[in-house]
Amino acid sequence: MKKAVCLLSGGLDSTTALYWTKSQGCDVSALTIHYGQLHECEIEAAKTICRGLEIPHQIISVPMPWGGSALLDKDIPIPIDRDAAQMGQDIPATYVPARNTVFLSLAASYSEAIGAEVIVIGANALDYSGYPDCRPEYFESFTETLKRGTRSGAEGRPIQIEAPLLRMTKKEIVLLAQSLKVPLEKTWSCYLGKERPCGVCDSCRLRQKGFGGAGLEDPQISDVSARILS
Amino acid sequence: MKKAVCLLSGGLDSTTALYWTKSQGCDVSALTIHYGQLHECEIEAAKTICRGLEIPHQIISVPMPWGGSALLDKDIPIPIDRDAAQMGQDIPATYVPARNTVFLSLAASYSEAIGAEVIVIGANALDYSGYPDCRPEYFESFTETLKRGTRSGAEGRPIQIEAPLLRMTKKEIVLLAQSLKVPLEKTWSCYLGKERPCGVCDSCRLRQKGFGGAGLEDPQISDVSARILS
Repeated sequence: MKKAVCLLSGGLDSTTALYWTKSQGCDVSALTIHYGQLHECEIEAAKTICRGLEIPHQIISVPMPWGGSALLDKDIPIPIDRDAAQMGQDIPATYVPARNTVFLSLAASYSEAIGAEVIVIGANALDYSGYPDCRPEYFESFTETLKRGTRSGAEGRPIQIEAPLLRMTKKEIVLLAQSLKVPLEKTWSCYLGKERPCGVCDSCRLRQKGFGGAGLEDPQISDVSARILS
Repeated sequence: MKKAVCLLSGGLDSTTALYWTKSQGCDVSALTIHYGQLHECEIEAAKTICRGLEIPHQIISVPMPWGGSALLDKDIPIPIDRDAAQMGQDIPATYVPARNTVFLSLAASYSEAIGAEVIVIGANALDYSGYPDCRPEYFESFTETLKRGTRSGAEGRPIQIEAPLLRMTKKEIVLLAQSLKVPLEKTWSCYLGKERPCGVCDSCRLRQKGFGGAGLEDPQISDVSARILS
């Protein structure tokens, strides 16, 4: 049984990646990194998802006091009302400096310590916000860096990076999630993190595109509505 | 004036790298990462050094609860009494999984946020403990990873990594430190972190080799002795 560490934010993509990892028969541990996001909705979602799967779950706080992102600094506005065609044209204010590099490096450390052979990340380079650290050529280079800079690499067992959603559309991700029985109502995607998803940030827009394309209702929206109405 | 971020542990090498960066006329900020080391002597040394230089200093705590190193887990013995020839033959128990990858990724995040063009690290691949993340080919690959996975890289201003001590002997590092007027008595190298350096861990041994080769007395030892006797 292959041992894996899956980066889990608690959103649609990373939760689907986690369920995919389980479906491959891996012995998977999840790693959630609290990096000073303005809200903690995702962290709570991640906890609920791991409890449901009964898998080991490390949650660590890694402060990035230098900010430099709308997700870290409330004075930088989060772009709203962009359609998928506008996303990917430039790097938006929600880009967090070197975030995936920080995440993958911590996942690599965790992997080496527990003897995991593979890191799984739910990154996507098709329906995405244009972040440079979500592109295939970035993951290829990071894999090489790990091969050269870790004990496991030096000993001929380099850690691999799997990004199973990398070349999927959001529609395909939603359909995959459905087939894997991902508890989509428990995932949280919105950047703004209020009682109800805002519906207009890039992350909400991409999620809508996925559910819309798949012809499915987003259970998170119904669930949140139910909570508000109850 | 070039803007730089220098990783500072508070030891001989990183402090010399910091003074070297200043000597190059850079506008330098220091970054110290507390990653769960068994002692805090180095952190205190780093604070004192930055106060002396009057430079910005970020100190962040990045837990690595998974351990996997003698520097993190008191149940794993720290190798002692090895001579420099024995070091570098294998990867010792003091290797911290993916440590420099974690450090450099955080330095990259900090650099992007403040607009620094270069990260300086005091790594050394000659008189060293055999860590894979101290070798030139590792730094080359990490530089490429940053080029591909950051906003600055995507915009044609990739962050560079400088490791000015990489190919120097410890003797040369001590002589460079002396010429740069590094307050060597304030640096802390020992892995064991008691009142007085142990003198037998790899880090103490390499430091002795440097001072011995340079024909200098280690002022830290005299300073510690003075404190103990006073």
